[in-house]
Amino acid sequence: MLTLPTYDDVCAAAQRIQGHAHRTPVMTSRTINQELGAQLFFKCENLQRMGAFKFRGAFNALSRFDARQRRAGVVTFSSGNHAQGIALSASLLGIPATIVMPQDAPASKIAATRGYGGNVVLYDRYKDDREQIGRDLAQKHGLTLIPPYDHPDVMAGQGTAAKELFEEVGPLDAFFVCLGGGGLLSGSALATRALAPHCKLYGVEPEAGNDGQQSFRSGAIVHIETPKTIADGAQTQHLGNLTFPIIRRDVDDILTVTDAQLVECMRFFAERMKIVVEPTGCLGFAAARNMKTDLRGQRVGVLISGGNVDLDRFCALLSASAP
Amino acid sequence: MLTLPTYDDVCAAAQRIQGHAHRTPVMTSRTINQELGAQLFFKCENLQRMGAFKFRGAFNALSRFDARQRRAGVVTFSSGNHAQGIALSASLLGIPATIVMPQDAPASKIAATRGYGGNVVLYDRYKDDREQIGRDLAQKHGLTLIPPYDHPDVMAGQGTAAKELFEEVGPLDAFFVCLGGGGLLSGSALATRALAPHCKLYGVEPEAGNDGQQSFRSGAIVHIETPKTIADGAQTQHLGNLTFPIIRRDVDDILTVTDAQLVECMRFFAERMKIVVEPTGCLGFAAARNMKTDLRGQRVGVLISGGNVDLDRFCALLSASAP
Repeated sequence: MLTLPTYDDVCAAAQRIQGHAHRTPVMTSRTINQELGAQLFFKCENLQRMGAFKFRGAFNALSRFDARQRRAGVVTFSSGNHAQGIALSASLLGIPATIVMPQDAPASKIAATRGYGGNVVLYDRYKDDREQIGRDLAQKHGLTLIPPYDHPDVMAGQGTAAKELFEEVGPLDAFFVCLGGGGLLSGSALATRALAPHCKLYGVEPEAGNDGQQSFRSGAIVHIETPKTIADGAQTQHLGNLTFPIIRRDVDDILTVTDAQLVECMRFFAERMKIVVEPTGCLGFAAARNMKTDLRGQRVGVLISGGNVDLDRFCALLSASAP
Repeated sequence: MLTLPTYDDVCAAAQRIQGHAHRTPVMTSRTINQELGAQLFFKCENLQRMGAFKFRGAFNALSRFDARQRRAGVVTFSSGNHAQGIALSASLLGIPATIVMPQDAPASKIAATRGYGGNVVLYDRYKDDREQIGRDLAQKHGLTLIPPYDHPDVMAGQGTAAKELFEEVGPLDAFFVCLGGGGLLSGSALATRALAPHCKLYGVEPEAGNDGQQSFRSGAIVHIETPKTIADGAQTQHLGNLTFPIIRRDVDDILTVTDAQLVECMRFFAERMKIVVEPTGCLGFAAARNMKTDLRGQRVGVLISGGNVDLDRFCALLSASAP
């Protein structure tokens, strides 16, 4: 039985990933500070290895494998950044990796996962149950299943980004973190409560997929259909059995933003800060901007989760919203 | 009579801009290191204030004004990053700024310059001589003219980026720097010869505008027509009377690259390193990539000069070259 991770697990994860994951920079923008009358600190996980925070949790989980697990290998299911995080971590650690991906996933993502040495197994997302395929492969070949978010080692690994942020900039008054399945938010919550106990911590979802907000307010995990949103990293249908209790205990509120707001933030990041951020990575900033004067005079953290967006999609989103 | 700056002037400039200019990050990419079999260090002046290194030289020059000069104000001519560098520096130092810009400059650049508080004077680039307009305004109103590159304080200020790079990563075997009028290259040369005397130093121009290469090889400043290239920051027609002697003395060679190579580098920066770089900012990297195996085993510096490219233009350039 897996148990809830604690801040000690985040600290142990930080040790394990040191020298393997980047200690990503914290960026600031005078323009946005003036707009909000606040001091914002952006933790840039788009500049992490393979372009997203997911490398942290994946590497932490795989580096805990024992000799038998390493020989047999890892299996996971993901169409996104977790797939690449596992494939890259496995290749660095010499562990065979099997990644279950939908057959209609972007060719670039399948190619990138294979490029990192992952053995890709395709499935039909309209017929097959990817979790079942993963479990079957694990059982048949003795593989260890590392799911995208609901795993203590994954959650603890993701919490290292927030730990680094607080260590670099000190306590904050408010902190905005993207929310999909809750791996990043629960890990960030552990670091926040340890390092800045009075900081307001917000999870941020796309408006179309507010299962986390519903769950947070009702007190039980709510399942939804796969939401239609450009924030593909937050198209999860439900929180996890491990992520939810921590979120419920340690997070102050769950907020939502629209896709149009995400695009405006993507534009701001590219035009004013010269960085490429994927739509999901804009969730935190969009929510901070919506708060406007409520943040006046405060020190505010924003976690940018990743930058993995095809350039043609990036440009299409920006041109569709041209001001 | 203005005299050639030395490395001491670069050090003095570094003191003056400290706390005003960003100490920009140095980025690396495992992908490109593998491609070239070398270790590359990218000095990211696209992440500098107002998006380009030009802030360094402008701020250094203006902070040397005496009381009379400060009251009367500064004048310059530029359609690009120098205009914004002067306007921003002047506003920070409380100095009135007049910027002579072509009337067909992108509206966004005129707006940005005005946004920093600059008084913009428009001219017709097909009829008027911008340098003459600048000189006339200077004389009539007692303004101090700070040209875009051929000025010792501008050159010394631009050299602080290379100084920071060497201080952070140590000596290099080769260093690639963009070349327009030579402000950045001459300043970088002073820092390079002081901090890494044996480093090969290359200036890089667009193929269509190789006046610097011609000048370097012939030993006299060559004037050309405004070249047609996407590297708008390197559309200068000639090197300066101050920049050229330093370039001739301290630079190992001047290389050229094509516009298509610039776009491929722009794509790489956005896709793999998640940063927005303007075409001119890609000159150094494009030349390093062209050298390929000649750099094997070496430690290589690349100066990314800026990130100020309209997003619609950025996307148009990338889509026209889609692989």
